[in-house]
Amino acid sequence: MGKLARKVAIIGAGMSKFGQWYPIKQNRDLFQDALIEAIKSVDKNFNMKEVEEVFVGNFTADLFNHEAHIAPLMAQLAGLNPKPASRFESACASSGLALRHAVINVASGMNDLVMVAGIETMTEVPTVDVTDALATASDTRIEYPAGATFPGLYAAVANVHMHKYGTKDTDLFNVAIKNYENGAENPYAQVQMTIEQVMMDKKKKAEKQGQPVPDWKDPYEFLRSSANPYIAYPLRLFDCSLVTDGAAVVFLASKDVAKKYTDTPIWITGVGQGSAQLQLSSRDTLESFIATKTASSTAYKMSGLEPKDIQIAEVHDCFTIAEIVALEDLGFYEPGKAATAISNGETKRNGNLPINTSGGLKAKGHPVGATGVAQAVEIFKQMRGIAERKRQVKFDVERALTHNLGGSGATCVVHIYEK
Amino acid sequence: MGKLARKVAIIGAGMSKFGQWYPIKQNRDLFQDALIEAIKSVDKNFNMKEVEEVFVGNFTADLFNHEAHIAPLMAQLAGLNPKPASRFESACASSGLALRHAVINVASGMNDLVMVAGIETMTEVPTVDVTDALATASDTRIEYPAGATFPGLYAAVANVHMHKYGTKDTDLFNVAIKNYENGAENPYAQVQMTIEQVMMDKKKKAEKQGQPVPDWKDPYEFLRSSANPYIAYPLRLFDCSLVTDGAAVVFLASKDVAKKYTDTPIWITGVGQGSAQLQLSSRDTLESFIATKTASSTAYKMSGLEPKDIQIAEVHDCFTIAEIVALEDLGFYEPGKAATAISNGETKRNGNLPINTSGGLKAKGHPVGATGVAQAVEIFKQMRGIAERKRQVKFDVERALTHNLGGSGATCVVHIYEK
Repeated sequence: MGKLARKVAIIGAGMSKFGQWYPIKQNRDLFQDALIEAIKSVDKNFNMKEVEEVFVGNFTADLFNHEAHIAPLMAQLAGLNPKPASRFESACASSGLALRHAVINVASGMNDLVMVAGIETMTEVPTVDVTDALATASDTRIEYPAGATFPGLYAAVANVHMHKYGTKDTDLFNVAIKNYENGAENPYAQVQMTIEQVMMDKKKKAEKQGQPVPDWKDPYEFLRSSANPYIAYPLRLFDCSLVTDGAAVVFLASKDVAKKYTDTPIWITGVGQGSAQLQLSSRDTLESFIATKTASSTAYKMSGLEPKDIQIAEVHDCFTIAEIVALEDLGFYEPGKAATAISNGETKRNGNLPINTSGGLKAKGHPVGATGVAQAVEIFKQMRGIAERKRQVKFDVERALTHNLGGSGATCVVHIYEK
Repeated sequence: MGKLARKVAIIGAGMSKFGQWYPIKQNRDLFQDALIEAIKSVDKNFNMKEVEEVFVGNFTADLFNHEAHIAPLMAQLAGLNPKPASRFESACASSGLALRHAVINVASGMNDLVMVAGIETMTEVPTVDVTDALATASDTRIEYPAGATFPGLYAAVANVHMHKYGTKDTDLFNVAIKNYENGAENPYAQVQMTIEQVMMDKKKKAEKQGQPVPDWKDPYEFLRSSANPYIAYPLRLFDCSLVTDGAAVVFLASKDVAKKYTDTPIWITGVGQGSAQLQLSSRDTLESFIATKTASSTAYKMSGLEPKDIQIAEVHDCFTIAEIVALEDLGFYEPGKAATAISNGETKRNGNLPINTSGGLKAKGHPVGATGVAQAVEIFKQMRGIAERKRQVKFDVERALTHNLGGSGATCVVHIYEK
């Protein structure tokens, strides 16, 4: 019960460059970009034909691209028809979901080598329609008809967290500043600038255009200014993740087969998933997500690890407040204590618990259905020591975690990785 | 490799009444109707709280209901939050897909008791939008922009089959006539009339309204008349499945746990899935589906059974031609030989291989994402000997099969059941 019957490893992982790609690149193209990167990352002897099954995470190609049934198409592009190909959906946790079911599939002995992809092309529709499509992951009988969209729902979470723990706007800014610092070091990120660079850029533009030059002295002043407008109080523009097109691919193998392809498999030793009521109004708590607690406690138990054993993590920062809540729900910090740890720099690349070295959903970008697998790609690179530019952490990463959230926390999938 | 590590049984199964339910009943309501039926079908000691994970098949609540992320909602309605809840999509094979991944999950030892649901509410949008939404399961870069929708794609299949094997319109009519005969005996079916009754009804109406009474002598004359117009040559109205709202639920248990709930578990001893190119233009054959051949050969191998061992089957008759192709691809008849067997009455309820005793997608109805699990519900009833009215077959069913197809055969899922 609740065990992985066989060991399962990631033997290859890659992602497309995240960004606004439509119409130049669409689901098919982004998937192929990610596939090529994943194939290149496999150490030796890789033969695509040996892949036995395809798992695809996608939130809503239906609404973004008027396209469903995309799993057999991705199998076709990879030359894998007539092998099984399935799509998994749980809003922004869609490819975390695909990854979990793929791990269970390999652990069960059903297959020895499978491909897991996450894909989303969001910019085919105008931003207002993106917001509307994403809102289908909320409660569509209570929240949606009342006009709630995700910035508003996470604003409610932020307000409760602030009220209960004294969390401040500066705490939210710290998350954004850190994740932009990391994104600046990720050649696959949608935004490759620090917030300081964004600020300086805006100053230069004003100067060039002969307009009054804002006198922001540091990123905090910039983030507290009208250049960072409120979307839903207390969340401002730079508290929100990006609208992104992108794809990510990992290959999973059983223990025996993994040996064929690599001497440094990255084992997935814990998987966990949890659910919650879609509507916030039905929940006992807003400052904490029961789905995260359930998913992580299952994954910790399965791996035999505890929060203190985790050295780095990619967490689901769809909004800055979500990263703070995640760090508490995952047990890294006591409730109400994450913000102080973040402001002390503990979660920076050179801190003792680097979080979202990829730039996170904030800076790397958030192609919703691709995010879960993209998190695994970053962990793969960090554990292999091959993360690009200056974002590779300075110690040997032996134990890591990914946290992928769907909707306003109604789904959560957690994976634990070991070397 | 490719084995189920533990035995998995269906211990309960039920479905909502299929029909045009919107707005009286929607996804949530239909799911609850099916859930209650499934709970009632469990022999003893059932405690919903013991269910450990939720698997939901749904094609596109996104486009039909502007609703995604429905798995945690169904978990909520069943009182199962915060347990894992996942949605699976592969067009009309969505809940067959959910069933397969659930079987693998239980077989792997991850869980001992899970719920699998299929759900679709199609009539929330006008029929033209239903056709358009379904078309997202075709190739959206080649077929869809050219104006192809599913009646047209299956018409191409029918034309090739007719050309190659001499299949006639009468052969298609025979499938419709048989499935309506079965649907008339199913209190959960959308249409509970034989085609003869439909014909007589139309005659009576004409008489009542003082219009010329058509002189159709039998269902064949009726089906060849303008009362059965062409949708896409050679497919006419009565060759097409219905637009339906409905849901279906089954509970799966591991061997030890199944004993707690029933003395007559229905074992799932074979699961198989296959894929194909979305676009017909990329396939080697149109008169046969490689995905069905792959899925069924995998399932046969896993169960150790052969086509001749199967006593009854529910096959995916989204169009009458699809039933003929399925019977050949599943190995029940040689290529080109199914039509003769059907016309000889072999696939009728009292024949030697009863097919679609439920009425099939033609008469029971086809709520696309619910169909795969609804097929398992019919098999459960037939194997338990509890199928309603006169449709219970007269022999003890020990071995059965379900065949669930997505798109124009780009996905197929096959399950084999034993007592």
